Amino acid sequence: MLRTVTSLSLSGSAKGSLTRSPAALTTTRKISRSHPAFQGKAQISTASLSEDELKSLQVDRNRLMNDIHHTCQWGTGKRWGSQTTETGMSRLALSDTDKQARDWFVQTTKSLGCSVTVDAMGNTFAIRPGRHEAPPTCAGSHLDTQPTGGRYDGILGIHAGIEMLKVLQDHNLETEYPVGVVNWTNEEGARFPISMVASGVWAEEISLERAHNLGEVGGGTATMKSELERIGYLGSVPASHRSMPIAAHFELHIEQGPILEAEKQKIGVVQGVQAYKWFTIDVAGRDAHTGTTPFSARADAMLTAARLIAHSHRVAAKHSALASTGVLTLSPGSVNTIPGNVRFSLDIRSPVDATVEAVEAQLRKDFAAIASGGNADDPSFPQTSKHKLAVDWTTDTTSAAVNFHPDCIAAVRAAAGSVLGDEGLVRDMVSGAGHDSVYASRRCPTSMIFVPCRNGVSHNPEEHTSPEDCAIGAEVLMHSVLRYDQLRAQRERR
Amino acid sequence: MLRTVTSLSLSGSAKGSLTRSPAALTTTRKISRSHPAFQGKAQISTASLSEDELKSLQVDRNRLMNDIHHTCQWGTGKRWGSQTTETGMSRLALSDTDKQARDWFVQTTKSLGCSVTVDAMGNTFAIRPGRHEAPPTCAGSHLDTQPTGGRYDGILGIHAGIEMLKVLQDHNLETEYPVGVVNWTNEEGARFPISMVASGVWAEEISLERAHNLGEVGGGTATMKSELERIGYLGSVPASHRSMPIAAHFELHIEQGPILEAEKQKIGVVQGVQAYKWFTIDVAGRDAHTGTTPFSARADAMLTAARLIAHSHRVAAKHSALASTGVLTLSPGSVNTIPGNVRFSLDIRSPVDATVEAVEAQLRKDFAAIASGGNADDPSFPQTSKHKLAVDWTTDTTSAAVNFHPDCIAAVRAAAGSVLGDEGLVRDMVSGAGHDSVYASRRCPTSMIFVPCRNGVSHNPEEHTSPEDCAIGAEVLMHSVLRYDQLRAQRERR
Repeated sequence: MLRTVTSLSLSGSAKGSLTRSPAALTTTRKISRSHPAFQGKAQISTASLSEDELKSLQVDRNRLMNDIHHTCQWGTGKRWGSQTTETGMSRLALSDTDKQARDWFVQTTKSLGCSVTVDAMGNTFAIRPGRHEAPPTCAGSHLDTQPTGGRYDGILGIHAGIEMLKVLQDHNLETEYPVGVVNWTNEEGARFPISMVASGVWAEEISLERAHNLGEVGGGTATMKSELERIGYLGSVPASHRSMPIAAHFELHIEQGPILEAEKQKIGVVQGVQAYKWFTIDVAGRDAHTGTTPFSARADAMLTAARLIAHSHRVAAKHSALASTGVLTLSPGSVNTIPGNVRFSLDIRSPVDATVEAVEAQLRKDFAAIASGGNADDPSFPQTSKHKLAVDWTTDTTSAAVNFHPDCIAAVRAAAGSVLGDEGLVRDMVSGAGHDSVYASRRCPTSMIFVPCRNGVSHNPEEHTSPEDCAIGAEVLMHSVLRYDQLRAQRERR
Repeated sequence: MLRTVTSLSLSGSAKGSLTRSPAALTTTRKISRSHPAFQGKAQISTASLSEDELKSLQVDRNRLMNDIHHTCQWGTGKRWGSQTTETGMSRLALSDTDKQARDWFVQTTKSLGCSVTVDAMGNTFAIRPGRHEAPPTCAGSHLDTQPTGGRYDGILGIHAGIEMLKVLQDHNLETEYPVGVVNWTNEEGARFPISMVASGVWAEEISLERAHNLGEVGGGTATMKSELERIGYLGSVPASHRSMPIAAHFELHIEQGPILEAEKQKIGVVQGVQAYKWFTIDVAGRDAHTGTTPFSARADAMLTAARLIAHSHRVAAKHSALASTGVLTLSPGSVNTIPGNVRFSLDIRSPVDATVEAVEAQLRKDFAAIASGGNADDPSFPQTSKHKLAVDWTTDTTSAAVNFHPDCIAAVRAAAGSVLGDEGLVRDMVSGAGHDSVYASRRCPTSMIFVPCRNGVSHNPEEHTSPEDCAIGAEVLMHSVLRYDQLRAQRERR
């Protein structure tokens, strides 16, 4: 199937441009097979590469983009532009189109010399042998998408891993230890409603039984297990890090936020994942007529909720944390009736667990005071009513902060530095969203690489990362894996 | 049908009690036919009554409550207590049950010596002749209810008018000018979606054609005209103050607010109706991920809307006006997505038109400033983002302030003073809600009388006014009409 790739339209690949172009990327890149180190040798080991030789290893941008858009024929989503590749994706986990993309993944990686293992969650490990037998250093991400997703979230990470395998093959390079690419199942949680469920099972943080019995959203009768069976991806190998150990996990991903674009930077060296807690807040007052009820007689749940939401921003800002309300419902919902009940979501995040706790503690105290008629939010806020409202908190989700491994972070930082040649284009970041790397990090050294995405938009058909940025990210991923392989070899020698 | 009334359960009538009991009302009241003025005379004119004689005229509380609960057999609604009368009402305009209540109204008022006229909107005028031919002084309100309404809103006003007719008959009293009771059609606007539509047509503020063509809410095919015809209440007399002139209009109504109850007062002398404007406010920002988007990159429509709602309260309080938000919707509505769009209702009210305008002007200025990144609401609010959001105002309804007529207000105040004997139990009020008296006031001197309702609740099955308070209100209504009749006679003599 690889042979068909080059016939695809590549209109998308010529569009992006760099605002601050690192010298190495200003022209369409070619595989530097001409580098003296790679001339005429049968098999080169990564440990034997000099820094200069390592640096010269480049990805093939056109090939990478060709592959991405080729597999996006399976599950093509909503069109947003006139170019061939300007559509979103709608490739739900374990659907027929997901099977097609998986089959391509298996065939392609096998053709690149990998052995492929599918576990009981459909996680697919394509492993390229190294000079020594040992667990692989992996690039991992996912091929499933949101129902109205784009072409980069997850997909880029998998294709960058495959491009790495191709570069290694092109140069007849042998790693010290195996390297591989992992396609994790149902990362999005869009079809089976637990995000990152299959890496969670691999990490033994979620039980296989619970995962297998997950029913599809939307009222269908399929379960994860029935769909794994149906599409032929219910593997016989246990879904566990014990059966399929990984030495280190690197994940290239679009940022899904606006920071890199806004700062005109190219690579985020991801230090970890923010802690977050999700709450449902219920405010209970009393329905009353907007015309006949003076302020003094009101227990206005909407006014109180508005003050609580504004105050959550004040307190989060003070702690350099995040607070957000994405859902709000009220009742009874009539223009001339003061709502007696309002329910809203509150999402608190910070890179530090203790900061999330501190924001929560402060808000619990202040919310109660405000609902009781005080003005803890703003001393000048008019205290028009002595009626007390009830504020009830429900904790829906608690997710502790994740700190990635210093060795992996160091490998990514070094790779980014050598690929871009400009420290100013690289920044340390914390991921605001969850990824399979969160579960991977529980069982092996892990880090992630972020690349910019247009306007910070993801989970949307218009999600977009330029071909240049895809290639930079893929190259940093490849160099991170190879540097980590070198590190393993160095440590072995000591 | 009147003969059946006394057999009804009257459990409700024994329940209420006065917190501050005026002396005259501490025991169940009886018609004072024993007063010397009414002994043995064939026909007494109101103009000839002394102040002392007038004061002695009392309503029959049990008869009044009997009549109210008797007609509430037609359209009985949701039960909220165990007593026979502890249900709400669901008597939509021009329904079969509304026809039954109307038929009772016509038969009863005819039996009390009235001529009954039905106009082209089904407005029903029961007129008791006076000594001189002239337009009547009327008590008016409505027999229709909300779908989940109670036994007092509108119904009390009609029954108090009928009780007045009964007291006049009991005492063989003749007024100087005709007096009457008007049942206005579809005051609630709950079935045909314009409130007070039939008094509006009578006042020539709403066209007959528009009113007749109003379709019922909920998808049915009936129009006001077809339903008027179906139940036999499409009268041949034009619906117009020119065809059916009224000399003055008095309306007894439950307060629908909490003030009288909170202040332990019994009668509100209604000065007029608040001005109000209704707006739809649209806040447009940008959807973004709650985890990956720092405050500096957000255009958070929910946070902005929360600040605007809180600020509307600040500004309204400063102007002694009211501001309320009863409806709020947002999109896309996901816990981890910052809403890009929020729409909310804003209801601004004040007794003075200029105050409503001043609040609106201040909020238009401040809303724009807040949405542009400023902190006009609170100088200490953290200015975390420079992204500008759009705020769009749509004016949905403008209702100017209504000032009732000084003669009618004076009649009500004098009546309340003589009935209660304690000025402390009476307060001037402004109505926060619309009533048929708003349209009546465009064409004749008008005022209203408010009585307390439990917890300020209306438009609810549990709407409740004690029998004592119903009787006080009915008595003040009767005395207001008779005092106005005396006033007309005095002016005629001058």
